[in-house]
Amino acid sequence: MKSIAVLFHSGFGHTTNVAQAVVDGIGAVADVTSSLVEIDADGELSEEQWAELDAAAAIVFGSPTYMGMASWQFKKVADASSKRWFTQEWKNKLAAGFTNSATMNGDKHSTLHYFMTLAMQHSMLWVGSGLMPANSKAATRDDINYVGSFSGLMTTSPSDAGVDEAPPKGDIETAKLFGQRVAEVTRDLFK
Amino acid sequence: MKSIAVLFHSGFGHTTNVAQAVVDGIGAVADVTSSLVEIDADGELSEEQWAELDAAAAIVFGSPTYMGMASWQFKKVADASSKRWFTQEWKNKLAAGFTNSATMNGDKHSTLHYFMTLAMQHSMLWVGSGLMPANSKAATRDDINYVGSFSGLMTTSPSDAGVDEAPPKGDIETAKLFGQRVAEVTRDLFK
Amino acid sequence: MKSIAVLFHSGFGHTTNVAQAVVDGIGAVADVTSSLVEIDADGELSEEQWAELDAAAAIVFGSPTYMGMASWQFKKVADASSKRWFTQEWKNKLAAGFTNSATMNGDKHSTLHYFMTLAMQHSMLWVGSGLMPANSKAATRDDINYVGSFSGLMTTSPSDAGVDEAPPKGDIETAKLFGQRVAEVTRDLFK
Amino acid sequence: MKSIAVLFHSGFGHTTNVAQAVVDGIGAVADVTSSLVEIDADGELSEEQWAELDAAAAIVFGSPTYMGMASWQFKKVADASSKRWFTQEWKNKLAAGFTNSATMNGDKHSTLHYFMTLAMQHSMLWVGSGLMPANSKAATRDDINYVGSFSGLMTTSPSDAGVDEAPPKGDIETAKLFGQRVAEVTRDLFK
Repeated sequence: MKSIAVLFHSGFGHTTNVAQAVVDGIGAVADVTSSLVEIDADGELSEEQWAELDAAAAIVFGSPTYMGMASWQFKKVADASSKRWFTQEWKNKLAAGFTNSATMNGDKHSTLHYFMTLAMQHSMLWVGSGLMPANSKAATRDDINYVGSFSGLMTTSPSDAGVDEAPPKGDIETAKLFGQRVAEVTRDLFK
Repeated sequence: MKSIAVLFHSGFGHTTNVAQAVVDGIGAVADVTSSLVEIDADGELSEEQWAELDAAAAIVFGSPTYMGMASWQFKKVADASSKRWFTQEWKNKLAAGFTNSATMNGDKHSTLHYFMTLAMQHSMLWVGSGLMPANSKAATRDDINYVGSFSGLMTTSPSDAGVDEAPPKGDIETAKLFGQRVAEVTRDLFK
Repeated sequence: MKSIAVLFHSGFGHTTNVAQAVVDGIGAVADVTSSLVEIDADGELSEEQWAELDAAAAIVFGSPTYMGMASWQFKKVADASSKRWFTQEWKNKLAAGFTNSATMNGDKHSTLHYFMTLAMQHSMLWVGSGLMPANSKAATRDDINYVGSFSGLMTTSPSDAGVDEAPPKGDIETAKLFGQRVAEVTRDLFK
Repeated sequence: MKSIAVLFHSGFGHTTNVAQAVVDGIGAVADVTSSLVEIDADGELSEEQWAELDAAAAIVFGSPTYMGMASWQFKKVADASSKRWFTQEWKNKLAAGFTNSATMNGDKHSTLHYFMTLAMQHSMLWVGSGLMPANSKAATRDDINYVGSFSGLMTTSPSDAGVDEAPPKGDIETAKLFGQRVAEVTRDLFK
């Protein structure tokens, strides 16, 4: 059984909703397990959480996009991962990423490409969303990948939406399919 | 009178619509003129068009986002601009950029950041959209900056929408405000 | 036997040197073959070349960095690959990338991240250099990964160096190790 | 008299050396003043420091590149700047940026482009290095802009170099010219 660690920070809970949906999607795939590794408000992880990352076959990075980039709490963990970088301990793990913000675009690409840069420094492999976008005239906000990302998963939660109402169901369904995609690649990688 | 050159390529006409709206927005500002400098289907400009760029106080770069980046025709002009780069002929001109694609996100950030990279190689100054996004629950597709970009202008035209119906009016209005922003900064810069 | 296609454009021959070294590195790995798929000066590939890409288990993208991005010839092929994108024909292939330019930094990161964006649109997996940088006081220009890239391979050829003298031997050795890295991951992927 | 605030974080002191050289370069330009606004080890600024940023005509962002991006301490300040973002308080200020890391490339472009993204969210204008690179065969490590950046200033300090010996003198001279460039544009902008 291969394990996938979903390493994420959430400021207000919307990103937690996405992380949970990703885990739900992973759950649909046999021979793969998953766990939520949540970064706290001070940007810290416990030793047990670091151990979960070390043991995982794949790590999914998740964070809100704040001011055009992953939150400082996520970055604090990324900086602390330099210890693993020196020894290239995460080499050949699979990596993927997701981000949530209030604005449709809102520089979410910037956060996902940072996750890719981080993964490459760790010599991990990167897998994206694997999903085509909904971009015709008939497309609606509830469609799969309406937000329209390839490098990873992007979800959009309106600035005044509570954690019980955002991101919308289409984005949550997209998150599940993204989790499934990551799980399938994890399962089949270096088999 | 300072002049602004809108240097753009359009594959099917949607980006032309945006370029025209940018020019309309520039037209609302006194003491600034503008011109459309359209790149042809072979990625070429005439000598007269190059001269317009050389004479302009500001150059606005525009292109569809195809496969995650400006079109090859735009890039051909960028490559040909290396002649100006060697002599830093465009140093201290203002630069800005816009892009249109079918998908809400669709890696449009990638195109705008390339435009920024190009501008920086030419030692130009960069100005973004200067527009806050429409990102509340009440926001609609017709609002100003609903697509939600800061680094420049992003518009979204559905994949099956004709040039007479896309991008939608909210994006066109956003393009006008973007043109106005660029014109105001051009007028007041290095006064 | 899995095959790796090295899809590249070279303006003056320096990038061809790198492509050849990547192929040499691939040659050191058993159970993997490779081929050079060179884009011509008009940005065109023959039908046979497209077929080689379609048949490959992995595609390595290579281009000089001109004005902060892959050459327009490379971009023309990327744009033409939209036909494969619609059908997601390259889904689950491995992707990697390299770039050469005259300047140590010179926005080479921009080219590699574009290659990553392109690969993600095709739902490919991405593998980087897997190489630690030479960055101590004792490091020399001839060391492995002195240019210092993770997301892919970067080489630097002085602006006035002929194709028989650049990139320098350290970069060529780095290119071989990069080729070997890509070959090993290709061999072991989805085994 | 226009003022320029150099907002920076330094982990070990090398980035402080660069910040000081930038300030020295600013000092060579008449009618412009400058101040160092250093972010502390907890990612905090005092109220007086925030007031300095608010009062400045230009803000220069500076940070080491750690794990492919600005340090978490810098990001914490960027996140806290969302209060200014809501009111667009920094609109039309000039922005520029610099970064230092151990590796020649080492994803420093990623940090500078994040600084650009941040500046664009604040509706600031961006100015780059304005310096051509030293990239011929005769170029040496002590030349101006040998590291070779356009979007902002990049310096490289070997991983085992003390703060009294790095970055090398060529990079320090480049930092002074960069400071001078930012000062000249600040002085002449919106005159």
